[in-house]
Amino acid sequence: MISLIGIGSKREHITLKAVDKIKEADVIIAYYPYLEHIEDLLEGKEVLRRGMGDEMERVELAIEKEKEGNNVAIISSGDPGIYGMANVYFQIIDKYTDLEFEVIPGVTAATYSASALGAPLHDMAIISLSNLLTPLEEIERKIKYAAIADLVIAFYNPKSKTRTEPFERACEILVENRNPETPVGIVKTEGTETITHICKLGQLKDQDIHMSTTIIVGNSMTYVKKGHMITPRGYKMNAKLPEQTEEFYERFFNGDIQEGRNLECEYFPCHDGQESCTFCYCPFYPCADGSTGGNWITDKNVWNCKDCNWVHKQEVVDEILDYVKDNIKSMDDFDKKKKDLLKLRRATIYKTRDLDFNRNYDLDN
Amino acid sequence: MISLIGIGSKREHITLKAVDKIKEADVIIAYYPYLEHIEDLLEGKEVLRRGMGDEMERVELAIEKEKEGNNVAIISSGDPGIYGMANVYFQIIDKYTDLEFEVIPGVTAATYSASALGAPLHDMAIISLSNLLTPLEEIERKIKYAAIADLVIAFYNPKSKTRTEPFERACEILVENRNPETPVGIVKTEGTETITHICKLGQLKDQDIHMSTTIIVGNSMTYVKKGHMITPRGYKMNAKLPEQTEEFYERFFNGDIQEGRNLECEYFPCHDGQESCTFCYCPFYPCADGSTGGNWITDKNVWNCKDCNWVHKQEVVDEILDYVKDNIKSMDDFDKKKKDLLKLRRATIYKTRDLDFNRNYDLDN
Repeated sequence: MISLIGIGSKREHITLKAVDKIKEADVIIAYYPYLEHIEDLLEGKEVLRRGMGDEMERVELAIEKEKEGNNVAIISSGDPGIYGMANVYFQIIDKYTDLEFEVIPGVTAATYSASALGAPLHDMAIISLSNLLTPLEEIERKIKYAAIADLVIAFYNPKSKTRTEPFERACEILVENRNPETPVGIVKTEGTETITHICKLGQLKDQDIHMSTTIIVGNSMTYVKKGHMITPRGYKMNAKLPEQTEEFYERFFNGDIQEGRNLECEYFPCHDGQESCTFCYCPFYPCADGSTGGNWITDKNVWNCKDCNWVHKQEVVDEILDYVKDNIKSMDDFDKKKKDLLKLRRATIYKTRDLDFNRNYDLDN
Repeated sequence: MISLIGIGSKREHITLKAVDKIKEADVIIAYYPYLEHIEDLLEGKEVLRRGMGDEMERVELAIEKEKEGNNVAIISSGDPGIYGMANVYFQIIDKYTDLEFEVIPGVTAATYSASALGAPLHDMAIISLSNLLTPLEEIERKIKYAAIADLVIAFYNPKSKTRTEPFERACEILVENRNPETPVGIVKTEGTETITHICKLGQLKDQDIHMSTTIIVGNSMTYVKKGHMITPRGYKMNAKLPEQTEEFYERFFNGDIQEGRNLECEYFPCHDGQESCTFCYCPFYPCADGSTGGNWITDKNVWNCKDCNWVHKQEVVDEILDYVKDNIKSMDDFDKKKKDLLKLRRATIYKTRDLDFNRNYDLDN
């Protein structure tokens, strides 16, 4: 039996099955730095340490050892199917008959890195920046369309001492296609320590990036709060409604609202750059989505929109007014239609994402 | 302490750290079906089973229990950061002070499913087809650009009894933007069993797909061999060169080759639909990449190009002839320039991918 085993990024993230399969193996074949994470499992086994670039040899050696009657483990860091040894292995299996084998999945760098950053993932792309075997134009095309698709993007193998061009091109393509204010998480593992840093996309090109760094580029909705990188999923939150909300919507339902700027209001302009008072109270309240600038008042269960002027942008009002007028006719409708409202909010963020969102996060916090 | 824990798709794929954290917990909070995988770890703990859609309540409950002094574990299947509980959690943490928490990554469905199919992954996208909280247009846009980028695509939450439209649209968008012959892997877990099925993209719409199915759509290079779905990474393989290769390239280096069809050759047409004999012997031999039709002769270490006519397509010859003429001037150059040749081959496959590739895989094998 040949087991292609992913051992994750750190010893603690190895799976039960991976441990079992390593224990059962007679022969262990690995790129040598991976072995330090499983040193204690290697006693009494034949251990074949190989260098980078020997992928083909590692696989042929495994098959040779299996044919001799051994249980063989080929070790990949992370997951063996994501830039690991599985693809190389399967490219040659039809050379041989009667091979027994299995792939043991592991925790890949994207999810491991995300766990150290907070919760940056949603729909996403994983792209390797190594152009050793992949033409740069292919990598560039993937980055461009992943950026346009607004996928969160995890970059693997971003840079080596001699290979810097794909990373430079990635930075250029990303800022052409995504807001330079987008948060980017940078994760390194040094020994047992995980080191994270969050910057803005526009600063990415100047960061200290190595071969084993993982980079996670947020999407249009990603924000940073208390040092965590967060991509909201869009659930409706529970929070106290401001007291005046009902009073405002009473007038709204009666058609008695002031569209546009309400210069006569004693609070005007209650928000910086306020273009419209049409939704004096936001129909999406409480969104609990810091990407537009709001935040929780700590320990009060109150969502605070003071730093969010999104619903006061004329372009946003134009997108949502008809839906709200036609569908929200009583306070109960906010609850009944909550999923549609969440989707409307999300669609409007996408349509108006070139507006200057108030991404008021503090990178050093 | 609140631990947001991913337990993978099956008990055996849980990580050591996840097990430790569950053992340390006083209170376990989970969507109830996930608990069956960790039943044996629950003794003596307060277990709060919740239903689908209670995400917010689960998080608030966890915080309440943590404030009472408990170690709390919130359980997600797969990884908590990919459509799991992490995003919901981080959306509300700034409501509270002094919360201690950590995210424990797990094996996500894409890598778990890939391990059951073979090695289908390379640069990839993960996209959820649930439009409960995400507008369908947003999902459609992501699918379209991921398809154009030629990313391998893993779809999560593809379909429910009432929610079929996103899956239908996905199938339509994919066949508009990718070869309908592209292999697609379908993976379901039933109890402890993993059930896999491979079909062609054009057949995907008619497959039996459920909420917990994972779908993996290959890229331009993905092929099926011996029932495994394989996306080649592009390594140079070791194999015996056919004897006449050197003789052919001797003539090639002397400029003494027959461009186009060689009607006078006694073997013409040695391949079906042969348009060009310019590369009587393929400069990329042995590619070990079944996507263009080749295969290994079992137990002989010989790569067999009989069913690959790719390098005999005029369009392919037009793409590669200048490079090969200018850069390969002796047999040694095949080795010295092997990385450039691999990239040229890959770039040419992309440029000419609308040609009718000979994807001669047998889905039932």
